[in-house]
Amino acid sequence: MSEKIFYPEYSKHYPLLVKNCLKKPMMLFPNETAMVYRNDEGQYLRFTWREWLERTCKLAHAMKTLGVKEGDRIATMALNHHWHMENIYASICSGAISHPINMRLSLDHMTYTINHAEDKIIFFDADSLLTLEALYDRIKDKVELFVYMSDKPGLPETSIKPLYNYEELIKDEPSTYDWPDLDEDTHAVLYYTTGTTGLPKGVLYTNRQVYLQCIFFLLRRGAALRMPGDPPPPDDWIPMMNVPLFHIHAWGAPFYYVFEGVKIVFPGKFTAESFCELVHNEKVTQTSLVPTMLAMLVEYEDIGKWDLSSLIQVTIGGGALPLGLKLKAEKLFPTMNATSGYGMTETMAGCVGNILTREMREWPKEKVDQVLVKTGFPYIPGVEARVVDEDGNDVPRDNETIGEIVVRGHWIMEQYYKDPEKTAAVWRDGWLHTGDVAKMDELGYMTIADRITDVIRSGSEMVPTVLLENLTSNAEFVLEAAYVGVPDDKWGETPLALVRKTPDSSPSEEDILTFLQKEGVDTGKITRWMLPVYVAFVKDILKTSVGKYDKIAIRKQLDEFMDVAKRVRKT
Amino acid sequence: MSEKIFYPEYSKHYPLLVKNCLKKPMMLFPNETAMVYRNDEGQYLRFTWREWLERTCKLAHAMKTLGVKEGDRIATMALNHHWHMENIYASICSGAISHPINMRLSLDHMTYTINHAEDKIIFFDADSLLTLEALYDRIKDKVELFVYMSDKPGLPETSIKPLYNYEELIKDEPSTYDWPDLDEDTHAVLYYTTGTTGLPKGVLYTNRQVYLQCIFFLLRRGAALRMPGDPPPPDDWIPMMNVPLFHIHAWGAPFYYVFEGVKIVFPGKFTAESFCELVHNEKVTQTSLVPTMLAMLVEYEDIGKWDLSSLIQVTIGGGALPLGLKLKAEKLFPTMNATSGYGMTETMAGCVGNILTREMREWPKEKVDQVLVKTGFPYIPGVEARVVDEDGNDVPRDNETIGEIVVRGHWIMEQYYKDPEKTAAVWRDGWLHTGDVAKMDELGYMTIADRITDVIRSGSEMVPTVLLENLTSNAEFVLEAAYVGVPDDKWGETPLALVRKTPDSSPSEEDILTFLQKEGVDTGKITRWMLPVYVAFVKDILKTSVGKYDKIAIRKQLDEFMDVAKRVRKT
Repeated sequence: MSEKIFYPEYSKHYPLLVKNCLKKPMMLFPNETAMVYRNDEGQYLRFTWREWLERTCKLAHAMKTLGVKEGDRIATMALNHHWHMENIYASICSGAISHPINMRLSLDHMTYTINHAEDKIIFFDADSLLTLEALYDRIKDKVELFVYMSDKPGLPETSIKPLYNYEELIKDEPSTYDWPDLDEDTHAVLYYTTGTTGLPKGVLYTNRQVYLQCIFFLLRRGAALRMPGDPPPPDDWIPMMNVPLFHIHAWGAPFYYVFEGVKIVFPGKFTAESFCELVHNEKVTQTSLVPTMLAMLVEYEDIGKWDLSSLIQVTIGGGALPLGLKLKAEKLFPTMNATSGYGMTETMAGCVGNILTREMREWPKEKVDQVLVKTGFPYIPGVEARVVDEDGNDVPRDNETIGEIVVRGHWIMEQYYKDPEKTAAVWRDGWLHTGDVAKMDELGYMTIADRITDVIRSGSEMVPTVLLENLTSNAEFVLEAAYVGVPDDKWGETPLALVRKTPDSSPSEEDILTFLQKEGVDTGKITRWMLPVYVAFVKDILKTSVGKYDKIAIRKQLDEFMDVAKRVRKT
Repeated sequence: MSEKIFYPEYSKHYPLLVKNCLKKPMMLFPNETAMVYRNDEGQYLRFTWREWLERTCKLAHAMKTLGVKEGDRIATMALNHHWHMENIYASICSGAISHPINMRLSLDHMTYTINHAEDKIIFFDADSLLTLEALYDRIKDKVELFVYMSDKPGLPETSIKPLYNYEELIKDEPSTYDWPDLDEDTHAVLYYTTGTTGLPKGVLYTNRQVYLQCIFFLLRRGAALRMPGDPPPPDDWIPMMNVPLFHIHAWGAPFYYVFEGVKIVFPGKFTAESFCELVHNEKVTQTSLVPTMLAMLVEYEDIGKWDLSSLIQVTIGGGALPLGLKLKAEKLFPTMNATSGYGMTETMAGCVGNILTREMREWPKEKVDQVLVKTGFPYIPGVEARVVDEDGNDVPRDNETIGEIVVRGHWIMEQYYKDPEKTAAVWRDGWLHTGDVAKMDELGYMTIADRITDVIRSGSEMVPTVLLENLTSNAEFVLEAAYVGVPDDKWGETPLALVRKTPDSSPSEEDILTFLQKEGVDTGKITRWMLPVYVAFVKDILKTSVGKYDKIAIRKQLDEFMDVAKRVRKT
């Protein structure tokens, strides 16, 4: 543990530490409800801030007893609940590193991240037991011990060892802990990328970075532009945490919710029904969802029996939000204001957001929607984002020229864990190079076009596949669409559209082209050469663990798709 | 100027710099009104953000031409207006230090601060010309040059030299400036204490400290508790900057208002009429006032002819707010929510604020008012405050035991400029010792009792003079009251109350004692031994330059006051 920090350090460098998030609830709201967890049997567990903080302190003592030292990686393999939150705080605030294992990775990749992180302990819950058992043999020599988190006494029948019961472990420990005054550059969290283009990479952030992300997130919310018709803010925000904590700590949620001392609602496994029940019972006001969760709600038949009127803010992230789904979801939640944004593991949370300007309040709703469906404006306080050409110069604001997104700021990753070469490869000229490409419109709004590696190169031009995918999915008869390049002697590549039709429709391949001509080319959103040359109707489109189209896997099966594809235009 | 900062600095230490405040208005609101200044002839000057930023860049170039280098002190002697704002940003963002000369100091002390700061340039306006001339001979050998800020062409007739006209100086300079990527520990501002107990002390803050104060201030506003009956937030905040910039940069206002890109209204010289006219014309929503300004508004007869309904937030600081004045002012501004807090030059802005807990929403208004009139709760995100005894232990929460306030946090002064001894004297054990004493109630709310040096020591006890002063001024027939100690053979000191009566009342000295017995002793707010032994009715009570009672000056005239004082009780 670090020594106490005194003057002059405490005067000019009063440290930016995650432990500071604990102060407000501890001082102002100790007896108010901190967390509500609904387990899979539908039982509710409730904790006040005092109770939750005492459990967190007990856990920190227990970890110390187990030999955890500053810098050790403490992993979790778990859904969202109070145990997970206790673990995050006990780890970071005592100087260890919290590593939430991404449960959406393949078993191979999950095993790789655990061994690469050299996790000392894995905390897991009942939902993760089978997964852990499936990879246990490949990690058992590296991980020192395992802790089972459950509201049921005892341990599950398993060969995993040494295995402790969480509640047994903490029950006799002291309920206060003197959190050390760490250096603000002490590492706090370790996340792994999804590894769509190779092995997952470990992304390290410091206490300073995590804490500043939390502060700036809250600042941004407080300074959000009020649009006409916006519902007034509620007396108290009551968030439900749906985005998994194992997914970049739900984009920083454990930090800013605790900082504010608001009641946090945990749904256990996400189902449309448990979501609605919790909104209804706990008067949830805000939540973040990935598009697939939103789609589940849109398709849920019994939604009418729940009172969801308290829910006035839904943020969508983790993937592009097609305009079609957005419009359907807005009908469901009349006060909802779905927005999009851009972020990646290397940016912890959003670094481009859907910011509106004051003058847009005068605009008709349709025109504002056209702005909101773009990826966003490259201004979020605390981070900078640009779209640059190969020489590092800003691309023109013509809504057409494509360049790479580069970022820097308070919460852009410090380094790839144990990989200085890859770190140096992305951190160039003072900017982190994201590998994502985008274009800028005349107002300065950015639209993500693609991963650089996924780009379709037709002639000397890059085809903006994400734009085409969103546009195509706006057709009434389209459920979703993905674009990949097909080798072509003349153009290098030409675009192939993989399209899932809606259940009760039967468009032809040419209908797709006609739709794109009318809604895309004629409206100036795309140019003619971007139109698909081939269209293939498919039953499913392969996706990565985070719900993005898996272009690598699709390309591997290209021959199969071309067998059912129809050529819809000449080139 | 510093070199550009690259990886790894830009990854883990992306710098916390004041220049970042310029980004939002520059990117999102370039064509919206940035600042409105009403000059003393009642003319309005308006600037968009683009215009104001271009002027700021031109000024930075002009300063460079004049030889300003990183670390140079650039002083202002001016009211609040766009020139002053341009100067603050051009100085800090180019690496120089902004020193707003406190115009409320005595001429001797002002002279001292200019010579102590070794200011390279003084920027002054028409309102400050006479003051500058009065001390010119004593600073002319140290200050290199002077710049006159005015909307009138030419220069005033004066012996001050070399003297430049601001508008002439900037007019041919380039309108963009490549602000350097400074180290975040680069000094940004230099403020001087009011020197009530000796010479003024220079208080230095770094870019990191100023920027973090700005961020945390905005976060705090966004996360403020909504009370029943609170007006809904306006679509846009429109602040009027009344607290002088020469007073600790109006508690940080230039930073957080620019960061948000809101329209800032400058009243020139404060009068009740110009204040009301500007609120009426510009639809001002919020302002900060010192108690004397609030008192001027309460006494303004023509206030009924103005529409002040847009003004929904008034913050009072810079001195204790007597409950009497608070209640009168709340009648005037029905939606006003006057609060108090605690801060000093060494803490830049507030470090204790009137935070309410959620459960207080259920309390009756009178009970909430009793909380709001206390100094505040020692939790403001970003700073910590405690009340400690001589051994550094927290005083008990008995609302009685008095201890010293100690603070630390992101914007607690870095050092006393050129005075390591005094710096070390206040920065002890990791805490800055404020020299102010306070007590804590059972809920953890703090009430300032006194300066340690102003305390009345009666027997072995300390008499809480600020509490007595506030309590006394609650009497209908009292305008204001100050307490000092009178030497006493038996008790060491006994309390003397100096009282100003309201114009149309004629209480006796005993009425004061009766009131305090009933409202103070009988209600348990004070104990009997704290009651004044002597009461003296006076025409005026001496105050310092920032409106606090000048206990040193009062003590020097103690004999005169004792001549008119009446002994009201035995001891």
